[in-house]
Amino acid sequence: MIPDLRIGPALVVPVTAPPLRGYVEVTAGAISHVGAAPTAGRAVETVEARDRIVIPALVNTHCHTSQQLGRGLGDDVGLLTWLHDRIWPYELALEESDAELSALVCAIEQIRNGCTLLADPGGRHVDGMARGIAAAGIRALLGRSAMDSGDGRPDGDRETTAEVLDAQDELADRWHGVGLLRFSYTLRTIFNCTDELVTATMERARALGTVAQMHVAEVPEENSHAVATRGATTVRHLDRLGALGPDLLAVHATWVDDEEIALLAERGCPVSHNAASNLKILGSPRVADMLDAGVLVGLGTDGAPSNNRMSMIDEMWLAAIVQKGLRRDPTVLPADAVFRMATADGAAALGMADVVGAIEVGRRADLVVLDPFTPNFATAADPVAALVTALKSENVESVLCDGEWVLRDRCITRVDEAAVLAEAAGRAAAVRRRAGLLT
Amino acid sequence: MIPDLRIGPALVVPVTAPPLRGYVEVTAGAISHVGAAPTAGRAVETVEARDRIVIPALVNTHCHTSQQLGRGLGDDVGLLTWLHDRIWPYELALEESDAELSALVCAIEQIRNGCTLLADPGGRHVDGMARGIAAAGIRALLGRSAMDSGDGRPDGDRETTAEVLDAQDELADRWHGVGLLRFSYTLRTIFNCTDELVTATMERARALGTVAQMHVAEVPEENSHAVATRGATTVRHLDRLGALGPDLLAVHATWVDDEEIALLAERGCPVSHNAASNLKILGSPRVADMLDAGVLVGLGTDGAPSNNRMSMIDEMWLAAIVQKGLRRDPTVLPADAVFRMATADGAAALGMADVVGAIEVGRRADLVVLDPFTPNFATAADPVAALVTALKSENVESVLCDGEWVLRDRCITRVDEAAVLAEAAGRAAAVRRRAGLLT
Repeated sequence: MIPDLRIGPALVVPVTAPPLRGYVEVTAGAISHVGAAPTAGRAVETVEARDRIVIPALVNTHCHTSQQLGRGLGDDVGLLTWLHDRIWPYELALEESDAELSALVCAIEQIRNGCTLLADPGGRHVDGMARGIAAAGIRALLGRSAMDSGDGRPDGDRETTAEVLDAQDELADRWHGVGLLRFSYTLRTIFNCTDELVTATMERARALGTVAQMHVAEVPEENSHAVATRGATTVRHLDRLGALGPDLLAVHATWVDDEEIALLAERGCPVSHNAASNLKILGSPRVADMLDAGVLVGLGTDGAPSNNRMSMIDEMWLAAIVQKGLRRDPTVLPADAVFRMATADGAAALGMADVVGAIEVGRRADLVVLDPFTPNFATAADPVAALVTALKSENVESVLCDGEWVLRDRCITRVDEAAVLAEAAGRAAAVRRRAGLLT
Repeated sequence: MIPDLRIGPALVVPVTAPPLRGYVEVTAGAISHVGAAPTAGRAVETVEARDRIVIPALVNTHCHTSQQLGRGLGDDVGLLTWLHDRIWPYELALEESDAELSALVCAIEQIRNGCTLLADPGGRHVDGMARGIAAAGIRALLGRSAMDSGDGRPDGDRETTAEVLDAQDELADRWHGVGLLRFSYTLRTIFNCTDELVTATMERARALGTVAQMHVAEVPEENSHAVATRGATTVRHLDRLGALGPDLLAVHATWVDDEEIALLAERGCPVSHNAASNLKILGSPRVADMLDAGVLVGLGTDGAPSNNRMSMIDEMWLAAIVQKGLRRDPTVLPADAVFRMATADGAAALGMADVVGAIEVGRRADLVVLDPFTPNFATAADPVAALVTALKSENVESVLCDGEWVLRDRCITRVDEAAVLAEAAGRAAAVRRRAGLLT
């Protein structure tokens, strides 16, 4: 079979195998060949990539696509102001079409930062989110924000456990497996989810075959609340409920002790680490300790009001240097470990280890072609280490998702980017006005 | 007099005055008008900048230009390996022409990140450094690495106090005030500088009218060494020598106690904060506490083997979120304070408060035109705050230095950037080979 695409000769970084100088070929959306030489015969399309670097597309394990129009709303304020006075009013003011545009501009930013798979922990308008992501041509795990209890929520935002589950079941039927989309059951936080909802959610997630997503141990107050209401910290309580396992993505895990880290490792429960967002609002999790303990850790950006830079490239750089600083040990989180977190481990954390996250025959063709001839990269001693230490978004030249170009020679292929950004700027201002936020 | 250049209408962020929608005009290399309306009559050149943002060019208060070809040599290793096995062999292998190319590619990276003034704390080949910086068309304080004592230095690298001072005097005569260059006396660290050198250096710096640059309190061991050999920690000892004042730039100041912070504030001694470099190797200084105490703090990138991203834009983002995380208080280092650190305060820290760092009539015309229509910026709620929280190098559209374009519509104007980068990549590999490093 003639390959649809041949990229090379390039420096290929498969992640799950050593780097090589050679070729990657794609057939019917999947990687069909990786090697120092190409297969015999021609390919339908050939990308001459001498001196380029080919990597698997990055995986963003935590990305609130619906918050993309809220960039800047959470700057320089404390957590309660952030949540009650900024995020909730913003989310309530967001309409279905806003969520669609928000997801689309978010997807564009992901693509320009080399990412083709994101996990959204749940918004209010999943139909809009799905259409926005599909328009950009990338993959997503999409969820609906799930809460059946807790104080402080506006009246219009209260649902019973059954309503929460039914709404998700319906969305799973509608979107799971449509194009590159998967549905993912979610649990917002232990503040807002009953034990009944946790248990029923995990059953459904397992039946569907995708991870459930939950914000876990974000702030010390969360653990105090869990102890007061359930008799144990969040991680311990989730374990007692049987929820802790490979099919629950524990997002943040900022405040966990040694025993909880051991528990996450033992149960194979993956963690999504969001370095920038954590620093701004929550504190810094013990990621180096988690890796030492054998916890599977992926990286994520969180949402635009928590992290104004929605870039997996910036997250790699930041995650590495922050953990070095916390431990006062420059040898922790070496570049290869961090790159794996942003690719193969991220995919595994989302239950998609065999689908994307590495350049291996049989995985889907989600690839990034990097141009190393920029001032930040050209002189780097080790281009593979530099993928974490020196890479910036300007190096992202072309991006392939499921065998299709979504960025080609630095141009977004599926939509008119300039028009989308202009519309998004106006729409973001309109949402802020409706929500009574800033000007 | 007809202005040479009129930029506007744009969002103008003067730093020392409130943001406005309007025009900036340049005459004979200086800012001649800032206002909501332009002056009457035409200008020689007009830049239509509707929806653009105009800011003062950023100031990099700590930038080892000679280390630019050593990017990646210091990844993921401890401080002693970094210094003894990587940096010293690299520096000794560097020839004059390498230092020139290193400074040129460093200057290009600075320009692409909106910076037109850097302070180099001293290399071995000042003539080469000067030619490299001048070729790119930006400003610099250049110094010669100054050491007259200390263990561990190779034999070929030892000089007496008089030799150290004489060599600097000669370079000051040759380069100070040539084009946009200034000479700056330096002191490497207290490990390598006698009291006699400190005192004589400060006298000369004051006579010349530029700040002296010194790495101060980088590691806890430095304070122990100072206590053992001089009877006080570095900052206290420098104060006893009369060195602590507005004309000494204290670089890093990572390990200082409350009393030392108060001393830095009282003496008006500026600090250069290098967030990325610090996290990788040295630990994190108490910058929020310094600002609270009234210390003047500028930002810096350090060198490419300490910080693979030589970007003042990334430093702003990082400095803000790291201090928020350290204090667990998202309100510290708000965006406007950080932006001032990277502009007006940085210029003041280099003794150039009346020269650059703000958009004010009379200051030299070092300006950056930003394109906000990128996915990371277009939807930001507050474009001024977003200069710190969301800005990335892709927003830098054009850069003016002393009234001359050094970047125009994303193209470096003075040199063939692609050719320089290709040559630099080859030269960096050659230096590594000569130094016996890595490949």
